[in-house]
Amino acid sequence: MSDAGTDRAERDARMVLSRLMEPGDPDACRLVHEFSATAVLDRLRSGRLTSARAAGWAERLPQADATTYRRIAERIGARYVMPGDAEWPTRLSDLDALIGADDRRAGVPFGLWVRGPLPLAAACERSVAVVGSRAATAYGEHVAADLSAGCSDAGYLVISGGAFGIDAAAHRGALTGPAATLAVLASGIDRLYPAANSTLLLAIADAGLLVSEAAPGCVPTKSRFLVRNRLIAALSQGTVVVEAAVRSGSLSTARWARDLGRGVMGVPGPVTSALSVGVHELLRQPETMLVTDHHEVVDFIGPIGETAAPQRRGASRPRDELDEGTRQLLDAVPRVAPAPPESIARAAGMAAADVSQRLADLESQGFVVRESGGRWRATGRG
Amino acid sequence: MSDAGTDRAERDARMVLSRLMEPGDPDACRLVHEFSATAVLDRLRSGRLTSARAAGWAERLPQADATTYRRIAERIGARYVMPGDAEWPTRLSDLDALIGADDRRAGVPFGLWVRGPLPLAAACERSVAVVGSRAATAYGEHVAADLSAGCSDAGYLVISGGAFGIDAAAHRGALTGPAATLAVLASGIDRLYPAANSTLLLAIADAGLLVSEAAPGCVPTKSRFLVRNRLIAALSQGTVVVEAAVRSGSLSTARWARDLGRGVMGVPGPVTSALSVGVHELLRQPETMLVTDHHEVVDFIGPIGETAAPQRRGASRPRDELDEGTRQLLDAVPRVAPAPPESIARAAGMAAADVSQRLADLESQGFVVRESGGRWRATGRG
Repeated sequence: MSDAGTDRAERDARMVLSRLMEPGDPDACRLVHEFSATAVLDRLRSGRLTSARAAGWAERLPQADATTYRRIAERIGARYVMPGDAEWPTRLSDLDALIGADDRRAGVPFGLWVRGPLPLAAACERSVAVVGSRAATAYGEHVAADLSAGCSDAGYLVISGGAFGIDAAAHRGALTGPAATLAVLASGIDRLYPAANSTLLLAIADAGLLVSEAAPGCVPTKSRFLVRNRLIAALSQGTVVVEAAVRSGSLSTARWARDLGRGVMGVPGPVTSALSVGVHELLRQPETMLVTDHHEVVDFIGPIGETAAPQRRGASRPRDELDEGTRQLLDAVPRVAPAPPESIARAAGMAAADVSQRLADLESQGFVVRESGGRWRATGRG
Repeated sequence: MSDAGTDRAERDARMVLSRLMEPGDPDACRLVHEFSATAVLDRLRSGRLTSARAAGWAERLPQADATTYRRIAERIGARYVMPGDAEWPTRLSDLDALIGADDRRAGVPFGLWVRGPLPLAAACERSVAVVGSRAATAYGEHVAADLSAGCSDAGYLVISGGAFGIDAAAHRGALTGPAATLAVLASGIDRLYPAANSTLLLAIADAGLLVSEAAPGCVPTKSRFLVRNRLIAALSQGTVVVEAAVRSGSLSTARWARDLGRGVMGVPGPVTSALSVGVHELLRQPETMLVTDHHEVVDFIGPIGETAAPQRRGASRPRDELDEGTRQLLDAVPRVAPAPPESIARAAGMAAADVSQRLADLESQGFVVRESGGRWRATGRG
C-alpha cells in the first residue's frame, strides 16, 4: 500500500465490495484475501467470476459506488479504516482463524466506517463488551448502566450494539465515565438504527465511536445483526452478558467471544426471571465467569494484578480474633443469669484451671463482666 | 463388636463421650479411633488421662449418663446409630481424611441420635443438601421450596439444618415430595431448636429424619452450628446454597462439601441483593456449579445420564429450519409493499436465477406469498 493510487483504489474497492457481499461471508473474504479487493472487483465487473455466488454479488453492482460512499461519509463526518491503517484494530484478524471451522460468517471485515473523535485501535486496546436483551428489565438496565459506568471509570471502553434495553443502558452508563463507549451498528454508518435511539447514538458519535462494516445506506437485517455481533466480540477483550432470554442474540456475541479466546462473563439474576435464563445457561459453561460488578470484570480481563476485585467480607467481628478454645468458652458464658466459673467450665468442656485465665482475658477485652459472687455474664460483644 | 455386652458398652461410652467432647474434636476422634470409646472413657474416669484437654472433658463427667440418654431417646422415639450399624452412613468416614489438614473439627461423629421412620444410610444414598441464610428473602424461600420439592419428587432426600429461612423452606418443600427430608440439629435430639420451628421439626421426625451427634440435652452454640454443617455436607451427595450473605454459615457447609469432594452448587439471585453476595462469590469458584432448578441439581450430582436437565430452547422457530441462504433471502422479502424477484435478489445479494427456486420453496412453506404482478410479500411467518 505504499503507492497512494493503489491504496485509494483498494480502499474504494473494499467500500464497494462491502455493499456487494454480505458481511463476514467466508467465500468473499477468502477471495479478497487471495487477490485483493481491486482484483476481485475488476473480475466481477468484467464478468470473469462466473459462480452463482459471484452472480449474486454482481446483482448489486449498480447500487454500489465508492464516490457516493465518500460523499456520505464526509457529510456525516465518518472515515473509512481498513487493514494496514494506523487506526485498524489488529485484534480483528483473530476472526481469520474461525473461518472454515463451520460455515459461519466469521470473516475479517474489508474495512470499517468509523464516526467519532477517538482513534479506533487505541480506544479498543482496553475495552469490554456489555450486551444483553432488548426487552430488558429495570434490574438489568440498572446493572448494565452501573457496571459500564464503573468500567469506563476504570479506563475501559464499553462496546455494545446500540440497541434498546441492555445495550442502550450500557452506552448511557459508559458515557458518564472518561473512557466513553463504542457502538457497532448492523446498518450503514449513516443510518442510526433503531431511530428511537438516534439521540443516544449521536451522543456516542460525539464522545465515543460509531462503527459499521456495512456500506452507507445499508439497512440492518436479522442475519446482519448476528454477523455484526462478531465485531463486538472481536474488538473487545471480553464480553459481559447482562440479561438474555434463551434465544437472545447477545448469547451469539458470547459465543463469538468464546471462540475468539476472549473472556466470557455473565451477570446473574433471579432464576425466576425469563430474562436471566440465557445468562444462567451461559454461566453453567466452564469458560464463563460470573461477575457482579465492574471490579470483577476488570479483574477477569485486565492484566494480572492490575485491579483486584475487593475481597468481600462482612464487617469482621471481634470474636473472630479469639482462639478456638476461648471462643468456645465465650459461647458458654450466659448472657442473662450470671454463672460461676465451674459451671461455665463444665458447659464449655474445659478444665476449671484453664478457664479462669481465659475469663480474665475475655473481661479485659469487654466480652464478659464479673458480677457479684464471682459470677460471670457475657456482655453481648462479639 | 461380636459380643453384645462389648457392643453395648462401646455404644454407651460413645454416648457419654459425645457429651464430654465437642463434636468433631480432632484430638478426641484420634483417641477414640485408636483405643475405642470404652477404653478412653475408662481412662478418663480413673484419672489416667492427664492432659489439659482431658481435664476439660472430665469436668463434664458428672453430667453425662448413658442410662439417662437411653431413657430420653426411648421417650421421644429416637435411636442411637454408630459405625458398624446397618443404618450407619459409611459416607461419613470421608470426614476422616480432613482431620489433620488444619485444626478443623472434622472428626467422624462417635454416633448419631436419629429420630424418624426412614433407615438413615439408605435414605442418604440419594440425597442433596439445600442450605442458606436464616434471614432469607421471599425470593430465596420460594426457590428453596421449589427446588427441594423437585428434588424430593426425583427421589432425592433433602438434607438441611432445620433453621429459619432457607433451611425451613427447603424442608417444607421436600415434605411435599416422596423422598421427604432430613434435618441435622446442632442441639441434642430432644431439643427442637429453634423452638418456633418445632412444628416443622416434628413433621420432619414423623415423615423423614431428625439427626444429631450432640448428646440429649445439649444446647446449640455458635461453634456447634459450624461443626454440625460438616454433617450436612458429608451425609449428602452435594450441597446447594440458595441465599447467603457474605458471612453466612451456609457457606461453611459449601466449603465442607468442596473439601469432601461432594458437589457444590449455588442458586444465583439479583446482584443487588445482599443475600446473594455470598452465593455469587461461591459461584465464582471453578468447582461451584450454577443451578436454577432441580433438574440441574440432579444432573450435577446424579449418575451420568440419569436425568439430563431439559435443554432450554425458546420455542423453535420455523425459519431456523431454513438454510442460511434462504433465510437471508427471506429477510430481503418486504412485509408491506410486495416487490419483484429482481429487487428481492438485489436486496439479498443473490443471483436472480438462484432466487426464483428459493421463493417457490418459501411459498410452499408459507413464509411468502405471491401477489399480483409477480411481486412477493413476506407473510410474517418465521
